[in-house]
Amino acid sequence: MIKAGIIGATGYAGAELVRILMNHKDVEIKWYGSRSYIDQKYADVYRNFFEIVDAACMDDNMEELAAEVDVIFTATPQGFLAGVLTEELLEKVKIVDLSADYRIKDVATYEKWYKIEHKSPQFIEEAVYGLCEINREKITKDTRLVANPGCYTTCSILTAYPLVKEKLIDPSTLIIDAKSGTSGAGRGAKTQNLFCEVNESIKAYGVTTHRHTPEIEEQLGYAAGEEITVNFTPHLVPMNRGILATEYASLNRKPDGTYPGYEEIKAVYDRYYGKEKFVRVLDQGVCPETRWVEGSNYVDIGFVIDERTHRVVMMGALDNLVKGAAGQAVQNMNLLFGLKESEGLEMVPVFP
Amino acid sequence: MIKAGIIGATGYAGAELVRILMNHKDVEIKWYGSRSYIDQKYADVYRNFFEIVDAACMDDNMEELAAEVDVIFTATPQGFLAGVLTEELLEKVKIVDLSADYRIKDVATYEKWYKIEHKSPQFIEEAVYGLCEINREKITKDTRLVANPGCYTTCSILTAYPLVKEKLIDPSTLIIDAKSGTSGAGRGAKTQNLFCEVNESIKAYGVTTHRHTPEIEEQLGYAAGEEITVNFTPHLVPMNRGILATEYASLNRKPDGTYPGYEEIKAVYDRYYGKEKFVRVLDQGVCPETRWVEGSNYVDIGFVIDERTHRVVMMGALDNLVKGAAGQAVQNMNLLFGLKESEGLEMVPVFP
Amino acid sequence: MIKAGIIGATGYAGAELVRILMNHKDVEIKWYGSRSYIDQKYADVYRNFFEIVDAACMDDNMEELAAEVDVIFTATPQGFLAGVLTEELLEKVKIVDLSADYRIKDVATYEKWYKIEHKSPQFIEEAVYGLCEINREKITKDTRLVANPGCYTTCSILTAYPLVKEKLIDPSTLIIDAKSGTSGAGRGAKTQNLFCEVNESIKAYGVTTHRHTPEIEEQLGYAAGEEITVNFTPHLVPMNRGILATEYASLNRKPDGTYPGYEEIKAVYDRYYGKEKFVRVLDQGVCPETRWVEGSNYVDIGFVIDERTHRVVMMGALDNLVKGAAGQAVQNMNLLFGLKESEGLEMVPVFP
Amino acid sequence: MIKAGIIGATGYAGAELVRILMNHKDVEIKWYGSRSYIDQKYADVYRNFFEIVDAACMDDNMEELAAEVDVIFTATPQGFLAGVLTEELLEKVKIVDLSADYRIKDVATYEKWYKIEHKSPQFIEEAVYGLCEINREKITKDTRLVANPGCYTTCSILTAYPLVKEKLIDPSTLIIDAKSGTSGAGRGAKTQNLFCEVNESIKAYGVTTHRHTPEIEEQLGYAAGEEITVNFTPHLVPMNRGILATEYASLNRKPDGTYPGYEEIKAVYDRYYGKEKFVRVLDQGVCPETRWVEGSNYVDIGFVIDERTHRVVMMGALDNLVKGAAGQAVQNMNLLFGLKESEGLEMVPVFP
Repeated sequence: MIKAGIIGATGYAGAELVRILMNHKDVEIKWYGSRSYIDQKYADVYRNFFEIVDAACMDDNMEELAAEVDVIFTATPQGFLAGVLTEELLEKVKIVDLSADYRIKDVATYEKWYKIEHKSPQFIEEAVYGLCEINREKITKDTRLVANPGCYTTCSILTAYPLVKEKLIDPSTLIIDAKSGTSGAGRGAKTQNLFCEVNESIKAYGVTTHRHTPEIEEQLGYAAGEEITVNFTPHLVPMNRGILATEYASLNRKPDGTYPGYEEIKAVYDRYYGKEKFVRVLDQGVCPETRWVEGSNYVDIGFVIDERTHRVVMMGALDNLVKGAAGQAVQNMNLLFGLKESEGLEMVPVFP
Repeated sequence: MIKAGIIGATGYAGAELVRILMNHKDVEIKWYGSRSYIDQKYADVYRNFFEIVDAACMDDNMEELAAEVDVIFTATPQGFLAGVLTEELLEKVKIVDLSADYRIKDVATYEKWYKIEHKSPQFIEEAVYGLCEINREKITKDTRLVANPGCYTTCSILTAYPLVKEKLIDPSTLIIDAKSGTSGAGRGAKTQNLFCEVNESIKAYGVTTHRHTPEIEEQLGYAAGEEITVNFTPHLVPMNRGILATEYASLNRKPDGTYPGYEEIKAVYDRYYGKEKFVRVLDQGVCPETRWVEGSNYVDIGFVIDERTHRVVMMGALDNLVKGAAGQAVQNMNLLFGLKESEGLEMVPVFP
Repeated sequence: MIKAGIIGATGYAGAELVRILMNHKDVEIKWYGSRSYIDQKYADVYRNFFEIVDAACMDDNMEELAAEVDVIFTATPQGFLAGVLTEELLEKVKIVDLSADYRIKDVATYEKWYKIEHKSPQFIEEAVYGLCEINREKITKDTRLVANPGCYTTCSILTAYPLVKEKLIDPSTLIIDAKSGTSGAGRGAKTQNLFCEVNESIKAYGVTTHRHTPEIEEQLGYAAGEEITVNFTPHLVPMNRGILATEYASLNRKPDGTYPGYEEIKAVYDRYYGKEKFVRVLDQGVCPETRWVEGSNYVDIGFVIDERTHRVVMMGALDNLVKGAAGQAVQNMNLLFGLKESEGLEMVPVFP
Repeated sequence: MIKAGIIGATGYAGAELVRILMNHKDVEIKWYGSRSYIDQKYADVYRNFFEIVDAACMDDNMEELAAEVDVIFTATPQGFLAGVLTEELLEKVKIVDLSADYRIKDVATYEKWYKIEHKSPQFIEEAVYGLCEINREKITKDTRLVANPGCYTTCSILTAYPLVKEKLIDPSTLIIDAKSGTSGAGRGAKTQNLFCEVNESIKAYGVTTHRHTPEIEEQLGYAAGEEITVNFTPHLVPMNRGILATEYASLNRKPDGTYPGYEEIKAVYDRYYGKEKFVRVLDQGVCPETRWVEGSNYVDIGFVIDERTHRVVMMGALDNLVKGAAGQAVQNMNLLFGLKESEGLEMVPVFP
């Protein structure tokens, strides 16, 4: 039985981790860390766990926690883990970090976009970017630190990755227009996230400045084999869960002067994802909808070629709290401990 | 492995049955019956099942089905099962009927409220009303036909049952004001259920005439030991899932002239439900909210005594598609086959 | 041109007042009071007013305000107006108070339910309870202080008033089950009102303790000619606007031993409301829905008799921000200044 | 008093026309045409009009209608008006057509995208494309036929128009990612538009094939002075009203090799829209949100320059039923009859 601790257990991603791990046969949660609710019963904060979780919330003492558990999930604000991480901790416990602290390899880029100083850059190199479908072989029993990808980034990267990697599209033309449910904004008590402010409205936010941008650029840059710069625009949608990324890019002409067609692109997607349990490449003419992945670890991907503009419109949908956060964290944990990658994650999407 | 067939697999309750049974380790679905979608892939109707369910929809040939499976779930319109049920079928297969055909013991009452003739009243006596928490001992390996309770009725009955049974309240004063998410209205293409018609509104409907009324009256009448008549008013709420029943009744005076107090009533609820996995009696001061049971088989129950009016306000919440339909159907199936009652039903509620 | 000032202009009711008064041909808003946003442009707080309102928010200096305007609307927390009201103010300016400070005639009742000391009880007697359809003749050019009714109370009272007044129902049996959109909870940044907490859920709150209870009891008590006690249970619904009150009461037997029927009750409603512009008594079989009154000053009322239980189910729907707050405040203002009662309030409900 | 007739009065756009015209001081509706509801009371179809509109629905007899009214609004399916329009009609009555029949000058383009034969192409040339802010001077007392623009198109065109016209952006790079509330899908009883299917989800649809594409291309092509081809992708959002268009385009380099900056682009927007009542160019850093225009005729526009990619992200928001349909139709009617352009359209946006 793997013993797990969660720091930040009372945020939405933390609560989703609890929900998923409760149904994971090889894991036992030993520590519900939540600075804001210390000593309160966890089930009083999230009443869906009434009579299911009996524990009270604990503080975020990483040393004590490391002595008690095999893996720590940090579902914490940016900068928290970077501020407390030490070699001693990593010698004792595996860490899956749901924050952005170790996602970006270039410290300067991190500090510029996040506007905070990185307190432990020495661990960045070691951290593995935990996008399982792409970095699976790097996430092993020897891995100590996993940087769990962001919600928008998981969706944005997986949707475009095969076409970027196979140079079917020109990455300098990539535009990502993403839409997210409101749980992505967290559980903080802010006026702008009140029901009446979000309901019956849609807006873009963080236009040209959202912090998931450099993460997407870095990962797709690896795929492209060159530095790339993209436009990424997130939008807030009046729904609880779900991210849809609509991505536009110009197709590269082939040597014979023609453009790749449906069959060719479909074949590439199938080659990359055909055997992936959690990536579903949809049939021709079917567009992803967030309702079909809600509550599950799936990413649904579809695409349409515009023969008039020679662009391809790629679309990806996932549940931001599952594949976009807690589900992927558990997927990483499974890899870290040599379990079946999908263990505890085989939930069918909930509809309606 | 129990082989199961579903008639009406493409309604919302049918699809929820599929979702639950996919995660049930002892069951295999052999037949996705749907008259409207014959030969279409089930996953094309409900794309959440893409790459999960490969089967195509079948017709509703009960004879053929009975020869192939161990249990049939009928998630069909009123009158369907009553129209086709025969002794031969019941000799071959167990049936869990999610419609109302065998819920009401008095045929005249059924025919009056449902406005259809009952085509096979000879099976009504045999059918067991599958409210597991109350009729558990009647649902056994020898049982052939279970009438799965309605969504509103499950919620309404369980919420008031202990107080009626223990004669703490006067059942002639019982008023049930219930609120339901829109999945309860089904997947039929009706103008009144369009997004823009339901969203941003609330209304009562079926006032004094809703067909769950006699079902509630019959079951609570058994508890009361007398015939009772209640006011039941359903309301449509702009959300997908969930039923909340707010129930009002006058407390009976005790022999000493006083009224029962909080501790006394709480003790009764605890006595009835303390060991029930799926009924959670909330702590003092906590009111049920549908969000805390969504996606699960739980019923949450709370109550408040009004010392000014000597009434008790009882409240119950459940997910209409799970405990109110498919989950309870599986709970009944587990009992029918001698499995652990909660097998396949231990899902933690999904929030947010 | 009537000069108006608003204290609490940045709450939802305050903003709705601004919206309504912008379209009122006889009124000019001179003061947008908002302690939290002093000196900020009003249109930066509510961007719907961009290029429509140019003013900045002001403090809540009542003396200065009284010198500048003809009428003050206080859309403020309980206790504010009671804490600052003086005879000098009332000599200079009319006040329509949207808080509860002067709604309840008995100070002890106010202090018990609101749990605050009333700082100026000397004005309670003078204040007119501004439920226009009932107290119209008391709201005149000579009136100085109007206590604008609460949202739930306006709906609850108007729905039952004629039947209570005409003694067709037994007021001791009255049970009010009310459902409100989330704007009724105000714009304060509270976790419980975040989008993800409210969306996809319904709950009761303030059960047996909600502060609108004594207000309903007082007003319906006047109608009944006796003190009455009711059960009032509010619920939170995932929608922005709208209140639906579902009210249950036992019909009084007539001298001949029979109960009043549909025609008799309909005739009473028509007698009271037939000439009221803002109260619409619906046709037989039609139940009120909040969507049909959204954005307008209408109250829609319907009822169904249950011949089995000899109860009547009365239903009323209104927009909590209009007839339940700002619209009724303007209706009162119109009466105070001798304008046409519906001036500025003839908006057609907005659907969808 | 202008006499108006509406064909298609029971669709959402038709009902919004009724709502707006009820508050228009110079117009009287004489004909509520609705083939589906002939002889039914209009207020029984849309109960918000109870006690406001007393008329019953009429057929769509254009000849009879033309004899009775001064202007006909056709809020009808594509092809209806083209199928019945005659010179005789146009001699008697002005027509504002909310369908697409006369929006596109090239018949072949219309027939290709709409997949229907155009039955009266002879009137296309005469029809004025009623995007008032751009074509105002062509909509006069002499105009007989106005093609009222589509909802997506109004938003998409106005958002990009000044930058295309002033050649600040390269129109061949224009990508329009649009999001719409569900009223845009109409009131037809389709499974895909049921509450539970739309709620809690977002999807793209009509990718590369949506029929508003050629309309956008034609109008922006006039501005560009050349034929242009764009990517237009609509999305369905779980809300009643509102369209947000997020548009991406590469900035053109200036002769000096630099790119236009914020001030320069803002100045262009202000030059085009500074005096427009219904177009609000937002302050720097402010992004449009549909909630701030709901229920009104405003279009809110904002933009952000991405200095890394040399693209500009333009955003526009409007209410699809008002400025995107009925409001603009009335704006056109006002121009046709020489009234103040904003007559009857000065509604403040409704929030929340």
